[in-house]
Amino acid sequence: MEEVRLIEVKEAIMSDNDAVARSLKDRLSKEKTFLINLMSSPGAGKTSLILKTLESLQNELRIGVIEADIDSMVDAEKVAAHGAAAVQLRTGGFCHLDASMVEKGLDSMDLGELDLIIIENVGNLVCPAEFDTGAIKNVMILSVPEGDDKPLKYPLMFSVCDVLLVNKMDYLHLSDFNVEAMRERVFNLNRKIEIFEVSSKTGEGIEAWTHWLKGEAASFIG
Amino acid sequence: MEEVRLIEVKEAIMSDNDAVARSLKDRLSKEKTFLINLMSSPGAGKTSLILKTLESLQNELRIGVIEADIDSMVDAEKVAAHGAAAVQLRTGGFCHLDASMVEKGLDSMDLGELDLIIIENVGNLVCPAEFDTGAIKNVMILSVPEGDDKPLKYPLMFSVCDVLLVNKMDYLHLSDFNVEAMRERVFNLNRKIEIFEVSSKTGEGIEAWTHWLKGEAASFIG
Repeated sequence: MEEVRLIEVKEAIMSDNDAVARSLKDRLSKEKTFLINLMSSPGAGKTSLILKTLESLQNELRIGVIEADIDSMVDAEKVAAHGAAAVQLRTGGFCHLDASMVEKGLDSMDLGELDLIIIENVGNLVCPAEFDTGAIKNVMILSVPEGDDKPLKYPLMFSVCDVLLVNKMDYLHLSDFNVEAMRERVFNLNRKIEIFEVSSKTGEGIEAWTHWLKGEAASFIG
Repeated sequence: MEEVRLIEVKEAIMSDNDAVARSLKDRLSKEKTFLINLMSSPGAGKTSLILKTLESLQNELRIGVIEADIDSMVDAEKVAAHGAAAVQLRTGGFCHLDASMVEKGLDSMDLGELDLIIIENVGNLVCPAEFDTGAIKNVMILSVPEGDDKPLKYPLMFSVCDVLLVNKMDYLHLSDFNVEAMRERVFNLNRKIEIFEVSSKTGEGIEAWTHWLKGEAASFIG
Protein backbone atom coordinates (compact mmCIF):
# COMPACT_ATOMS: atom_id res chain seq x y z
CA MET A 1 0.00 0.00 0.00
CA GLU A 2 1.24 3.46 -0.93
CA GLU A 3 1.52 6.15 1.68
CA VAL A 4 -1.20 8.80 1.65
CA ARG A 5 -0.09 12.42 1.90
CA LEU A 6 -2.44 14.88 3.58
CA ILE A 7 -2.44 18.52 2.48
CA GLU A 8 -4.50 21.24 4.15
CA VAL A 9 -5.74 23.39 1.28
CA LYS A 10 -8.69 25.05 2.89
CA GLU A 11 -6.61 26.48 5.69
CA ALA A 12 -4.26 28.18 3.24
CA ILE A 13 -7.08 29.73 1.23
CA MET A 14 -8.99 30.75 4.29
CA SER A 15 -5.95 32.34 5.90
CA ASP A 16 -5.38 34.47 2.76
CA ASN A 17 -9.04 35.52 2.78
CA ASP A 18 -8.98 36.14 6.50
CA ALA A 19 -5.97 38.46 6.13
CA VAL A 20 -7.81 40.56 3.52
CA ALA A 21 -10.96 40.55 5.70
CA ARG A 22 -8.96 41.75 8.72
CA SER A 23 -7.44 44.61 6.75
CA LEU A 24 -10.93 45.63 5.57
CA LYS A 25 -12.19 45.66 9.18
CA ASP A 26 -9.27 47.92 10.17
CA ARG A 27 -10.01 50.26 7.28
CA LEU A 28 -13.73 50.41 8.16
CA SER A 29 -12.86 51.20 11.75
CA LYS A 30 -10.57 54.05 10.67
CA GLU A 31 -13.09 55.39 8.15
CA LYS A 32 -15.94 55.00 10.67
CA THR A 33 -18.11 53.02 8.26
CA PHE A 34 -20.20 50.12 9.57
CA LEU A 35 -20.41 47.21 7.11
CA ILE A 36 -22.99 44.41 7.27
CA ASN A 37 -23.15 41.28 5.08
CA LEU A 38 -26.71 40.18 4.24
CA MET A 39 -27.10 36.53 3.19
CA SER A 40 -30.02 34.23 2.33
CA SER A 41 -31.41 31.78 -0.21
CA PRO A 42 -32.54 33.24 -3.53
CA GLY A 43 -35.98 34.79 -3.12
CA ALA A 44 -35.92 35.19 0.66
CA GLY A 45 -36.34 38.94 0.25
CA LYS A 46 -32.88 40.54 0.59
CA THR A 47 -33.54 43.44 -1.78
CA SER A 48 -36.97 44.30 -0.31
CA LEU A 49 -35.51 44.17 3.19
CA ILE A 50 -32.72 46.55 2.14
CA LEU A 51 -35.25 48.97 0.62
CA LYS A 52 -37.31 48.92 3.86
CA THR A 53 -34.14 49.48 5.86
CA LEU A 54 -33.19 52.45 3.65
CA GLU A 55 -36.66 53.98 4.08
CA SER A 56 -36.36 53.65 7.82
CA LEU A 57 -32.78 54.89 8.31
CA GLN A 58 -31.85 57.14 5.41
CA ASN A 59 -32.64 60.34 7.29
CA GLU A 60 -30.37 59.25 10.13
CA LEU A 61 -27.45 57.49 8.43
CA ARG A 62 -25.62 57.93 5.14
CA ILE A 63 -26.08 54.48 3.56
CA GLY A 64 -24.46 52.63 0.68
CA VAL A 65 -25.24 49.22 -0.81
CA ILE A 66 -22.97 46.68 -2.52
CA GLU A 67 -25.17 44.44 -4.64
CA ALA A 68 -23.91 41.03 -5.64
CA ASP A 69 -27.02 38.95 -5.86
CA ILE A 70 -27.84 38.95 -9.53
CA ASP A 71 -26.36 39.29 -12.98
CA SER A 72 -28.39 42.30 -14.02
CA MET A 73 -28.31 45.71 -12.37
CA VAL A 74 -31.98 45.73 -11.38
CA ASP A 75 -31.39 45.51 -7.64
CA ALA A 76 -28.70 48.20 -7.63
CA GLU A 77 -30.96 50.50 -9.63
CA LYS A 78 -33.84 50.01 -7.17
CA VAL A 79 -31.48 50.88 -4.33
CA ALA A 80 -30.10 53.93 -6.15
CA ALA A 81 -33.67 55.09 -6.80
CA HIS A 82 -34.07 55.14 -3.00
CA GLY A 83 -31.16 57.60 -2.83
CA ALA A 84 -28.45 55.23 -1.56
CA ALA A 85 -24.96 54.98 -3.03
CA ALA A 86 -25.04 51.69 -4.96
CA VAL A 87 -22.34 49.50 -6.43
CA GLN A 88 -23.17 46.43 -8.49
CA LEU A 89 -20.61 43.63 -8.38
CA ARG A 90 -21.11 41.52 -11.49
CA THR A 91 -20.41 38.03 -10.16
CA GLY A 92 -21.77 36.13 -13.18
CA GLY A 93 -23.39 33.46 -11.07
CA PHE A 94 -20.38 32.98 -8.79
CA CYS A 95 -21.35 31.10 -5.65
CA HIS A 96 -20.15 33.54 -2.95
CA LEU A 97 -18.36 36.81 -2.19
CA ASP A 98 -14.93 36.80 -0.57
CA ALA A 99 -13.09 39.68 1.11
CA SER A 100 -11.13 40.69 -2.00
CA MET A 101 -14.36 41.05 -4.00
CA VAL A 102 -15.85 43.23 -1.28
CA GLU A 103 -12.62 45.26 -1.25
CA LYS A 104 -13.16 46.06 -4.95
CA GLY A 105 -16.65 47.32 -4.07
CA LEU A 106 -15.39 49.45 -1.17
CA ASP A 107 -12.60 50.88 -3.34
CA SER A 108 -15.22 52.35 -5.65
CA MET A 109 -17.16 54.05 -2.82
CA ASP A 110 -16.36 57.15 -0.80
CA LEU A 111 -16.20 55.63 2.70
CA GLY A 112 -15.72 59.02 4.32
CA GLU A 113 -19.23 59.94 3.11
CA LEU A 114 -20.93 56.75 4.34
CA ASP A 115 -21.92 55.62 7.86
CA LEU A 116 -23.36 52.23 6.87
CA ILE A 117 -22.81 49.89 3.91
CA ILE A 118 -24.99 46.83 3.33
CA ILE A 119 -23.65 43.98 1.20
CA GLU A 120 -26.35 41.96 -0.56
CA ASN A 121 -24.44 38.69 -0.93
CA VAL A 122 -25.08 36.01 -3.56
CA GLY A 123 -28.33 34.08 -2.97
CA ASN A 124 -26.99 30.81 -1.53
CA LEU A 125 -27.19 29.30 1.98
CA VAL A 126 -23.95 27.30 1.68
CA CYS A 127 -20.89 28.93 0.14
CA PRO A 128 -21.25 32.54 1.41
CA ALA A 129 -21.15 31.24 5.00
CA GLU A 130 -17.59 29.98 4.40
CA PHE A 131 -16.03 33.36 3.68
CA ASP A 132 -15.37 36.32 5.95
CA THR A 133 -16.24 39.29 3.71
CA GLY A 134 -14.72 41.85 6.08
CA ALA A 135 -18.19 42.86 7.31
CA ILE A 136 -18.47 43.86 10.96
CA LYS A 137 -21.75 41.94 11.38
CA ASN A 138 -23.30 39.05 9.44
CA VAL A 139 -27.05 39.04 8.97
CA MET A 140 -29.17 36.35 7.34
CA ILE A 141 -32.76 36.15 6.21
CA LEU A 142 -34.85 33.00 6.52
CA SER A 143 -38.27 33.44 4.95
CA VAL A 144 -41.30 31.57 6.29
CA PRO A 145 -42.05 29.76 2.98
CA GLU A 146 -38.57 28.15 3.11
CA GLY A 147 -39.53 26.12 6.17
CA ASP A 148 -38.49 25.83 9.81
CA ASP A 149 -36.03 22.98 9.11
CA LYS A 150 -33.39 25.14 7.41
CA PRO A 151 -31.17 25.41 10.57
CA LEU A 152 -30.82 21.61 10.42
CA LYS A 153 -29.83 21.64 6.75
CA TYR A 154 -27.54 24.69 6.70
CA PRO A 155 -26.01 24.84 10.18
CA LEU A 156 -22.88 26.80 9.21
CA MET A 157 -24.89 29.77 7.91
CA PHE A 158 -26.88 30.01 11.15
CA SER A 159 -23.67 29.61 13.18
CA VAL A 160 -21.76 32.50 11.56
CA CYS A 161 -24.56 35.09 11.69
CA ASP A 162 -25.08 37.75 14.36
CA VAL A 163 -28.68 38.36 13.34
CA LEU A 164 -31.45 36.23 11.86
CA LEU A 165 -34.32 38.05 10.20
CA VAL A 166 -37.33 35.73 9.88
CA ASN A 167 -39.01 37.37 6.91
CA LYS A 168 -42.43 37.04 5.24
CA MET A 169 -44.10 36.66 8.64
CA ASP A 170 -47.31 37.69 6.83
CA TYR A 171 -47.28 34.14 5.33
CA LEU A 172 -47.22 32.47 8.75
CA HIS A 173 -50.96 31.81 8.96
CA LEU A 174 -50.81 29.97 5.59
CA SER A 175 -47.92 27.81 6.66
CA ASP A 176 -46.94 25.00 9.02
CA PHE A 177 -43.76 26.93 9.91
CA ASN A 178 -43.19 26.41 13.65
CA VAL A 179 -41.52 29.55 15.00
CA GLU A 180 -40.69 28.00 18.38
CA ALA A 181 -39.15 24.86 16.84
CA MET A 182 -37.11 27.04 14.46
CA ARG A 183 -35.89 29.25 17.35
CA GLU A 184 -34.80 26.22 19.34
CA ARG A 185 -32.89 24.79 16.34
CA VAL A 186 -31.18 28.12 15.76
CA PHE A 187 -30.22 28.69 19.41
CA ASN A 188 -28.80 25.16 19.55
CA LEU A 189 -26.34 26.25 16.86
CA ASN A 190 -25.73 29.80 18.02
CA ARG A 191 -26.72 31.01 21.48
CA LYS A 192 -25.77 34.64 20.79
CA ILE A 193 -27.79 35.24 17.63
CA GLU A 194 -30.43 38.02 17.65
CA ILE A 195 -33.70 37.01 15.99
CA PHE A 196 -36.19 39.51 14.57
CA GLU A 197 -39.51 38.42 13.04
CA VAL A 198 -40.24 40.79 10.16
CA SER A 199 -42.27 41.36 7.03
CA SER A 200 -40.97 43.71 4.37
CA LYS A 201 -44.48 43.72 2.93
CA THR A 202 -46.44 44.79 6.03
CA GLY A 203 -43.55 46.51 7.83
CA GLU A 204 -43.98 44.22 10.88
CA GLY A 205 -40.79 44.09 12.95
CA ILE A 206 -38.81 46.45 10.71
CA GLU A 207 -38.53 49.06 13.45
CA ALA A 208 -37.05 46.57 15.93
CA TRP A 209 -34.49 45.47 13.32
CA THR A 210 -33.49 48.99 12.26
CA HIS A 211 -33.30 50.06 15.92
CA TRP A 212 -30.76 47.27 16.51
CA LEU A 213 -28.86 48.19 13.33
CA LYS A 214 -28.73 51.90 14.22
CA GLY A 215 -27.45 51.08 17.71
CA GLU A 216 -24.71 48.77 16.43
CA ALA A 217 -23.66 51.27 13.75
CA ALA A 218 -23.55 54.11 16.31
CA SER A 219 -21.41 52.12 18.71
CA PHE A 220 -19.00 51.15 15.88
CA ILE A 221 -18.61 54.59 14.31
CA GLY A 222 -18.57 56.28 17.74
CA MET B 1 -31.22 59.03 -8.12
CA GLU B 2 -27.63 58.09 -7.40
CA GLU B 3 -25.45 56.68 -10.16
CA VAL B 4 -24.83 52.93 -10.03
CA ARG B 5 -21.26 51.76 -10.52
CA LEU B 6 -20.72 48.36 -12.12
CA ILE B 7 -17.66 46.31 -11.18
CA GLU B 8 -16.73 43.01 -12.80
CA VAL B 9 -15.45 40.88 -9.92
CA LYS B 10 -15.88 37.44 -11.37
CA GLU B 11 -13.74 38.21 -14.39
CA ALA B 12 -10.82 39.25 -12.19
CA ILE B 13 -10.99 36.14 -10.02
CA MET B 14 -11.48 33.87 -12.96
CA SER B 15 -8.59 35.37 -14.88
CA ASP B 16 -6.27 34.75 -11.88
CA ASN B 17 -7.49 31.16 -11.65
CA ASP B 18 -7.24 30.69 -15.41
CA ALA B 19 -3.60 31.84 -15.36
CA VAL B 20 -2.72 29.25 -12.69
CA ALA B 21 -4.68 26.59 -14.62
CA ARG B 22 -2.80 27.41 -17.82
CA SER B 23 0.55 27.11 -16.09
CA LEU B 24 -0.49 23.71 -14.69
CA LYS B 25 -1.46 22.51 -18.17
CA ASP B 26 1.98 23.58 -19.49
CA ARG B 27 3.68 21.76 -16.63
CA LEU B 28 1.64 18.59 -17.22
CA SER B 29 2.51 18.70 -20.90
CA LYS B 30 6.24 18.99 -20.12
CA GLU B 31 6.09 16.27 -17.46
CA LYS B 32 3.96 14.05 -19.73
CA THR B 33 1.31 13.50 -17.08
CA PHE B 34 -2.37 13.38 -18.10
CA LEU B 35 -4.68 14.97 -15.53
CA ILE B 36 -8.45 14.46 -15.38
CA ASN B 37 -10.94 16.18 -13.08
CA LEU B 38 -13.81 13.95 -11.91
CA MET B 39 -16.93 15.74 -10.69
CA SER B 40 -20.41 14.69 -9.51
CA SER B 41 -23.01 15.08 -6.78
CA PRO B 42 -22.20 13.45 -3.45
CA GLY B 43 -22.91 9.74 -3.64
CA ALA B 44 -22.85 9.39 -7.42
CA GLY B 45 -19.96 6.93 -7.13
CA LYS B 46 -16.73 8.84 -7.81
CA THR B 47 -14.54 6.74 -5.51
CA SER B 48 -15.90 3.38 -6.73
CA LEU B 49 -15.44 4.49 -10.32
CA ILE B 50 -11.83 5.47 -9.59
CA LEU B 51 -11.17 2.09 -7.97
CA LYS B 52 -12.63 0.28 -11.02
CA THR B 53 -10.51 2.48 -13.29
CA LEU B 54 -7.38 1.66 -11.28
CA GLU B 55 -8.12 -2.07 -11.50
CA SER B 56 -8.51 -1.82 -15.25
CA LEU B 57 -5.50 0.38 -16.05
CA GLN B 58 -2.91 0.00 -13.33
CA ASN B 59 -0.87 -2.55 -15.26
CA GLU B 60 -0.69 -0.19 -18.23
CA LEU B 61 -0.36 3.28 -16.69
CA ARG B 62 1.29 4.67 -13.55
CA ILE B 63 -1.67 6.33 -11.84
CA GLY B 64 -2.04 8.85 -9.03
CA VAL B 65 -5.18 10.20 -7.35
CA ILE B 66 -5.83 13.58 -5.73
CA GLU B 67 -8.76 13.16 -3.36
CA ALA B 68 -10.76 16.20 -2.34
CA ASP B 69 -14.22 14.83 -1.79
CA ILE B 70 -14.39 14.31 1.94
CA ASP B 71 -13.02 15.46 5.24
CA SER B 72 -11.63 12.13 6.32
CA MET B 73 -8.91 10.19 4.53
CA VAL B 74 -11.05 7.11 3.84
CA ASP B 75 -11.19 7.57 0.07
CA ALA B 76 -7.47 8.24 -0.26
CA GLU B 77 -6.71 5.17 1.83
CA LYS B 78 -8.92 2.97 -0.37
CA VAL B 79 -7.09 4.30 -3.42
CA ALA B 80 -3.67 3.77 -1.84
CA ALA B 81 -4.70 0.21 -0.95
CA HIS B 82 -5.16 -0.32 -4.70
CA GLY B 83 -1.52 0.66 -5.20
CA ALA B 84 -2.01 4.17 -6.58
CA ALA B 85 -0.12 7.23 -5.37
CA ALA B 86 -2.72 9.13 -3.33
CA VAL B 87 -2.86 12.66 -1.99
CA GLN B 88 -5.69 13.82 0.25
CA LEU B 89 -6.55 17.53 0.05
CA ARG B 90 -8.32 18.44 3.26
CA THR B 91 -10.90 20.96 2.01
CA GLY B 92 -12.98 21.05 5.20
CA GLY B 93 -16.27 21.16 3.33
CA PHE B 94 -15.11 23.78 0.85
CA CYS B 95 -17.43 23.94 -2.14
CA HIS B 96 -14.97 23.43 -5.01
CA LEU B 97 -11.33 22.99 -6.02
CA ASP B 98 -9.53 25.72 -7.91
CA ALA B 99 -6.26 25.53 -9.83
CA SER B 100 -4.08 26.70 -6.94
CA MET B 101 -5.44 23.92 -4.69
CA VAL B 102 -4.72 21.33 -7.38
CA GLU B 103 -1.23 22.83 -7.74
CA LYS B 104 -0.61 22.08 -4.05
CA GLY B 105 -1.60 18.47 -4.69
CA LEU B 106 0.63 18.16 -7.76
CA ASP B 107 3.55 19.74 -5.88
CA SER B 108 3.45 16.85 -3.44
CA MET B 109 3.53 14.16 -6.14
CA ASP B 110 6.37 12.97 -8.36
CA LEU B 111 4.94 13.82 -11.79
CA GLY B 112 7.87 12.19 -13.58
CA GLU B 113 6.72 8.86 -12.13
CA LEU B 114 3.05 9.23 -13.09
CA ASP B 115 1.28 8.91 -16.48
CA LEU B 116 -2.22 9.70 -15.26
CA ILE B 117 -3.60 11.61 -12.27
CA ILE B 118 -7.30 11.59 -11.41
CA ILE B 119 -8.71 14.41 -9.27
CA GLU B 120 -11.76 13.44 -7.22
CA ASN B 121 -13.34 16.88 -6.90
CA VAL B 122 -15.70 18.00 -4.11
CA GLY B 123 -19.17 16.40 -4.37
CA ASN B 124 -21.19 19.30 -5.78
CA LEU B 125 -22.81 19.87 -9.21
CA VAL B 126 -22.60 23.67 -9.08
CA CYS B 127 -19.42 25.31 -7.85
CA PRO B 128 -16.75 22.90 -9.23
CA ALA B 129 -18.04 23.58 -12.76
CA GLU B 130 -17.01 27.23 -12.39
CA PHE B 131 -13.29 26.62 -11.92
CA ASP B 132 -10.66 25.38 -14.35
CA THR B 133 -8.56 23.06 -12.17
CA GLY B 134 -5.78 22.74 -14.75
CA ALA B 135 -7.01 19.27 -15.74
CA ILE B 136 -6.62 18.30 -19.39
CA LYS B 137 -10.08 16.71 -19.48
CA ASN B 138 -13.18 17.16 -17.31
CA VAL B 139 -15.28 14.10 -16.55
CA MET B 140 -18.58 13.98 -14.65
CA ILE B 141 -20.69 11.19 -13.23
CA LEU B 142 -24.48 11.27 -13.26
CA SER B 143 -25.94 8.27 -11.46
CA VAL B 144 -29.29 6.81 -12.47
CA PRO B 145 -30.94 7.39 -9.04
CA GLU B 146 -30.30 11.14 -9.38
CA GLY B 147 -32.74 11.38 -12.28
CA ASP B 148 -32.67 12.23 -15.97
CA ASP B 149 -33.56 15.90 -15.37
CA LYS B 150 -30.16 16.93 -13.98
CA PRO B 151 -28.92 18.45 -17.28
CA LEU B 152 -31.82 20.92 -17.03
CA LYS B 153 -30.96 21.87 -13.46
CA TYR B 154 -27.14 22.00 -13.69
CA PRO B 155 -26.43 23.03 -17.29
CA LEU B 156 -22.97 24.50 -16.64
CA MET B 157 -21.59 21.21 -15.30
CA PHE B 158 -22.77 19.31 -18.39
CA SER B 159 -21.42 22.08 -20.64
CA VAL B 160 -17.85 22.08 -19.30
CA CYS B 161 -17.31 18.29 -19.30
CA ASP B 162 -15.64 16.25 -22.02
CA VAL B 163 -17.09 12.97 -20.75
CA LEU B 164 -20.31 11.99 -18.97
CA LEU B 165 -20.31 8.66 -17.16
CA VAL B 166 -23.90 7.54 -16.51
CA ASN B 167 -23.27 5.36 -13.48
CA LYS B 168 -25.36 2.81 -11.55
CA MET B 169 -26.88 1.49 -14.78
CA ASP B 170 -27.72 -1.64 -12.76
CA TYR B 171 -30.49 0.49 -11.14
CA LEU B 172 -32.09 1.34 -14.48
CA HIS B 173 -34.77 -1.36 -14.37
CA LEU B 174 -35.94 -0.04 -10.95
CA SER B 175 -36.16 3.52 -12.17
CA ASP B 176 -38.08 5.83 -14.50
CA PHE B 177 -34.76 7.30 -15.71
CA ASN B 178 -35.15 7.90 -19.45
CA VAL B 179 -31.74 7.42 -21.06
CA GLU B 180 -32.79 8.84 -24.44
CA ALA B 181 -34.36 11.96 -22.88
CA MET B 182 -31.23 12.48 -20.76
CA ARG B 183 -28.95 12.10 -23.82
CA GLU B 184 -30.98 14.64 -25.78
CA ARG B 185 -30.84 17.14 -22.90
CA VAL B 186 -27.08 16.67 -22.56
CA PHE B 187 -26.35 16.97 -26.30
CA ASN B 188 -28.45 20.16 -26.42
CA LEU B 189 -25.96 21.67 -23.96
CA ASN B 190 -22.79 20.09 -25.30
CA ARG B 191 -22.62 18.44 -28.72
CA LYS B 192 -19.05 17.18 -28.24
CA ILE B 193 -19.47 15.31 -24.96
CA GLU B 194 -18.70 11.56 -24.89
CA ILE B 195 -21.27 9.52 -22.94
CA PHE B 196 -20.51 6.11 -21.43
CA GLU B 197 -23.17 4.08 -19.60
CA VAL B 198 -21.43 2.25 -16.77
CA SER B 199 -21.86 0.40 -13.51
CA SER B 200 -18.99 0.22 -11.06
CA LYS B 201 -20.87 -2.60 -9.35
CA THR B 202 -21.34 -4.95 -12.33
CA GLY B 203 -18.44 -3.63 -14.42
CA GLU B 204 -20.79 -2.79 -17.32
CA GLY B 205 -19.26 -0.19 -19.65
CA ILE B 206 -16.03 0.17 -17.65
CA GLU B 207 -13.93 -1.20 -20.51
CA ALA B 208 -15.32 1.34 -22.99
CA TRP B 209 -14.56 4.16 -20.55
CA THR B 210 -11.04 3.03 -19.71
CA HIS B 211 -10.33 2.41 -23.41
CA TRP B 212 -11.22 6.06 -24.08
CA LEU B 213 -9.14 7.22 -21.11
CA LYS B 214 -6.10 5.19 -22.14
CA GLY B 215 -6.31 6.54 -25.69
CA GLU B 216 -6.54 10.17 -24.52
CA ALA B 217 -3.70 9.72 -22.04
CA ALA B 218 -1.51 8.08 -24.72
CA SER B 219 -2.11 10.87 -27.21
CA PHE B 220 -1.31 13.51 -24.53
CA ILE B 221 1.83 11.95 -23.13
CA GLY B 222 2.99 10.90 -26.63
